[in-house]
Amino acid sequence: MRYVNFSPDGKTHQLGLLEGSTIVSLGDATLEQLLEQGADLAVWAAARRSSGAQYNANEVTLLPPLTRPGKIICVGLNYADHTKESPYDQPTYPTLFPRFNTSLIGHRAPMIRPVVSDSLDFEGELAVVLGRGGRHIPLEKALDCVAGYSVFNDGSVREYQFKAPQWTVGKNFDGTGAFGPTLVTADEVPLGGKGLKLETRLNGKVVQSANTSDMVFDVASLIVIISEAITLEAGDVIVSGTPAGIGWAREPKLIMRDGDVCEVEIEGLGVLTNAVRDEVPQR
Amino acid sequence: MRYVNFSPDGKTHQLGLLEGSTIVSLGDATLEQLLEQGADLAVWAAARRSSGAQYNANEVTLLPPLTRPGKIICVGLNYADHTKESPYDQPTYPTLFPRFNTSLIGHRAPMIRPVVSDSLDFEGELAVVLGRGGRHIPLEKALDCVAGYSVFNDGSVREYQFKAPQWTVGKNFDGTGAFGPTLVTADEVPLGGKGLKLETRLNGKVVQSANTSDMVFDVASLIVIISEAITLEAGDVIVSGTPAGIGWAREPKLIMRDGDVCEVEIEGLGVLTNAVRDEVPQR
Repeated sequence: MRYVNFSPDGKTHQLGLLEGSTIVSLGDATLEQLLEQGADLAVWAAARRSSGAQYNANEVTLLPPLTRPGKIICVGLNYADHTKESPYDQPTYPTLFPRFNTSLIGHRAPMIRPVVSDSLDFEGELAVVLGRGGRHIPLEKALDCVAGYSVFNDGSVREYQFKAPQWTVGKNFDGTGAFGPTLVTADEVPLGGKGLKLETRLNGKVVQSANTSDMVFDVASLIVIISEAITLEAGDVIVSGTPAGIGWAREPKLIMRDGDVCEVEIEGLGVLTNAVRDEVPQR
Repeated sequence: MRYVNFSPDGKTHQLGLLEGSTIVSLGDATLEQLLEQGADLAVWAAARRSSGAQYNANEVTLLPPLTRPGKIICVGLNYADHTKESPYDQPTYPTLFPRFNTSLIGHRAPMIRPVVSDSLDFEGELAVVLGRGGRHIPLEKALDCVAGYSVFNDGSVREYQFKAPQWTVGKNFDGTGAFGPTLVTADEVPLGGKGLKLETRLNGKVVQSANTSDMVFDVASLIVIISEAITLEAGDVIVSGTPAGIGWAREPKLIMRDGDVCEVEIEGLGVLTNAVRDEVPQR
């Protein structure tokens, strides 16, 4: 099933199932609430979909599948070819950094190039949404924790990412973390989200092309390793890293500009599309 | 006023005011809720304190003032003497990293030394809780955003902090982020939390001694600079960095062990005390 968090009127939100280009409403629950309650997403929707109002998916606003997850843990340097284009050697332990909820945007929302820097770059990634958490999760149970998968564009303001030893600020500008369009339940995705073609396109031109099987630390390993230190909770999101091809590593640098359209497509999970817009100065 | 989040029975929580060694209950609201609603904490409590039940502060469990803030942004390398003892040059921009809520503990709760590493270290810090947020907050309005101040012990598992280029995991082990004992409203603290003596003691011996005026980026500047990139929200927490004296920079290294007692005291804000306990293996 493909869950969408959408707004029919630009104000209120509803949860729904995307079926072709139709959204069947499931009411005003949130995925955060359902996952915290331990709901089985496939069962939960099945009992409600027959009575739901229908919407044309092209006539509503799509929001991130989760807008206030408990935490969003991103993984850097998780594709060897991307590490090679970076200033770093390949670490033997996952490189973790945060996304704060305030940076999230949905499918078709503008990705914002900030006034303070024009160095906005794309990073296509597989996002993993947890339906179950825990600490010291063993490998054989790790993938049981996954509720579903989605697509993420980890928009990065490179100048700010490297202003200090930690990347946090460059990874958290408002309007740079694109997430969606849907949450595809794990039963519809190969185990661990493996073997999926991942492609990022800028204005239709392919700029990243990889396979999710190329991760240095696969989804199950990430869950095991992170939970050795940190309690994972239902509704937490792991954004699993980007492959080679980022704009900042090119010669000359490829920087996104107002009006550019960036798409991240992951096989079976859909296409996440965002147009770049310059931030409108507030002062 | 000194707000405390406490549990009289180890299960439910209440908000209260600490007055001497007495806590006057204000009911079951949370500071997260009050701050999100824009409540003026001084006014809000004044209207409710006369009818509140009273508790002996030594007979209840003290919880972190906020247990689920929207985001916790920590600042590294924000005292020049600490940067000198670190492997880094002083950055000219704040070094930001996250605390996830799952790592938080309150005053008198055990600080957990994990099974996977014994390199648990202390970091005494001033915590800033926002009562108002925004983006592109101008300097002259920055301190109006502060609801209050608290004490933080940014317990750091050093081996994990340096396993990869980003510090996130070493700063987020369960049971390592001590926060409290109270939230002191901003009206009772010098403007910007400046000029306060900060002292960390391990088993009674002073290991860090500094003044909050020694920050490289003061509280107002942090709010301005962070909000150039990131929308700050009411209830967000900024943990403003630690001064020199950390155990990991000593020769030989000073590492906290089961049974050690670590105290962080900030003038006018109180003493945050946590005993170190070894994690009990789950498997």
